[in-house]
Amino acid sequence: MSAKPHFERVALMGLGLIGGSLGHAMKRAGLAGHVSGYARSVETRARALEIGFIDSAHETAAEAAKNADLVVICTPVGALGSVAAEIEPVLKKGAILTDVGSVKMAVVRDVGPHVPEGVHFIPGHPIAGTEESGPDAGFAELFDGRWCILTPVPGTEPQALEKLSAFWTACGSNVDVMEPRHHDLVLAIVSHLPHIIAYNIVGTASDLEAVTQSEVIKYSASGFRDFTRLAASDPTMWRDVCLNNKEPILEMLGRFSEDLTALQRAIRWGDGDALFDLFTRTRAIRRSIIDAGQDIAAPNFGRNPTHAKAADEDDVQ
Amino acid sequence: MSAKPHFERVALMGLGLIGGSLGHAMKRAGLAGHVSGYARSVETRARALEIGFIDSAHETAAEAAKNADLVVICTPVGALGSVAAEIEPVLKKGAILTDVGSVKMAVVRDVGPHVPEGVHFIPGHPIAGTEESGPDAGFAELFDGRWCILTPVPGTEPQALEKLSAFWTACGSNVDVMEPRHHDLVLAIVSHLPHIIAYNIVGTASDLEAVTQSEVIKYSASGFRDFTRLAASDPTMWRDVCLNNKEPILEMLGRFSEDLTALQRAIRWGDGDALFDLFTRTRAIRRSIIDAGQDIAAPNFGRNPTHAKAADEDDVQ
Repeated sequence: MSAKPHFERVALMGLGLIGGSLGHAMKRAGLAGHVSGYARSVETRARALEIGFIDSAHETAAEAAKNADLVVICTPVGALGSVAAEIEPVLKKGAILTDVGSVKMAVVRDVGPHVPEGVHFIPGHPIAGTEESGPDAGFAELFDGRWCILTPVPGTEPQALEKLSAFWTACGSNVDVMEPRHHDLVLAIVSHLPHIIAYNIVGTASDLEAVTQSEVIKYSASGFRDFTRLAASDPTMWRDVCLNNKEPILEMLGRFSEDLTALQRAIRWGDGDALFDLFTRTRAIRRSIIDAGQDIAAPNFGRNPTHAKAADEDDVQ
Repeated sequence: MSAKPHFERVALMGLGLIGGSLGHAMKRAGLAGHVSGYARSVETRARALEIGFIDSAHETAAEAAKNADLVVICTPVGALGSVAAEIEPVLKKGAILTDVGSVKMAVVRDVGPHVPEGVHFIPGHPIAGTEESGPDAGFAELFDGRWCILTPVPGTEPQALEKLSAFWTACGSNVDVMEPRHHDLVLAIVSHLPHIIAYNIVGTASDLEAVTQSEVIKYSASGFRDFTRLAASDPTMWRDVCLNNKEPILEMLGRFSEDLTALQRAIRWGDGDALFDLFTRTRAIRRSIIDAGQDIAAPNFGRNPTHAKAADEDDVQ
């Protein structure tokens, strides 16, 4: 990446966790002359201005996008098409239009038709987040050391792609480029399936007759609580992901269920060797994730402060 | 709980995560005059002595258990019966014999026949742990604020139960008493199913042809990494849990799969309302777990240090 990426005017469509974090990250590195923001709710707009991660708030997407050199749509995937349609008439020639949605084929399908001649449309997806949402959830460090995937469509100008890459790099991310279709397949296994499974197991646990909800909560430190974090994610966002990445998700769900049936059979027939083999080979993957800097090494995700500190100091295992 | 619980001599059978943490917790609160330890491996015994969470190490379980007032078996569940058989001849009259296994019906079945007249056998299970194992994994704070479930068998003397409860309380735990059968059902949903599901999804992700292992690792911060922690747990321990709590686990797996099939159908048919309903009602459970002190409130399990600090300070959202 060459020069410092800088946009005179950046517009954020959607001021939740990702929009907010982008605003904070731009402020931190001085990446934008002016950040304009749009959100449907008047409270969200007011709060974003108060926190200060945008410089101006607007009642319509079109007003916020006017004259912007970079427009980032940060709404749930289901709303991308209507936002794109609304801002289409005001988009500036030479502007870059991108998004942060968790699926990419659907974004190409829904936003693509609304991109005016001379506007550079480059779908994107920062692989970062928390289980929180709303304008208070964002923070400048969210993208630090995480990957951002850009999925340019055929004919994208290399200069525009380079400029957007440099922008994400300056926000703290590593940038990868891939085909939208491959993105959707990869994310189906690393993100969509984990969320769906987490939602499902928390649902199953709430519906039991023989075990009370209070028991589930009290004893959750034995494993269950780990799933509740993902299952506390934004319902609108995840409904839209499920509706817009159907085929890859169904494919991954099919494989997961097939494997689970085999595992269930090993449990039923007491096949200890098969269980031990699976439980051994999965262990190495966590180590690789930690080595790649994508999770912390402290046991229990560092929830125990005393021990987390000790683990930092000598890193025994 | 009345007087400070104290045992002249405590024997730990097994010096891994739980045995080690118990040793540390006893040292912290001065709960034992002498802690003797047994582990199969000579390296583990030497390391435990070096760290100092035991006072003496022994080559056989029987030697370690001799003269002990409290014997805690901390081996994987599959080894409990043979340890109990070995120490049976040396157990002191009036001693309390307990364990820390994740299943309880099987412990009653395997250990029960080896309990001599006059010895108080009270199965137990501290609901605490990390994904690490071995003598370096333990720490004194592991049980702080977590629950410990005792599952006394019919005829247990109330004084012995009270003494063991007071001991766990002094180790930092809250103590609950329940039937072994109910314990195994509750743990099947809050602990065993989450581990099995985590192992399974990590296995599924490693076996794909169209998505590389390196992609799974790079983009794991989008959800997948949360599952890898449980899937890095001790394989022997979890093989033994699966083999020894078969019926409740198969029951919970059946319910989970049934619910997952319904969810899969909602995705296939694009039933956004059903998805939104499920994704909404699961959100409240995480809040209850945090309110109950069984998980930390910081987003992303507090992995992002800057933001975790900020969340502590004003606790918005």
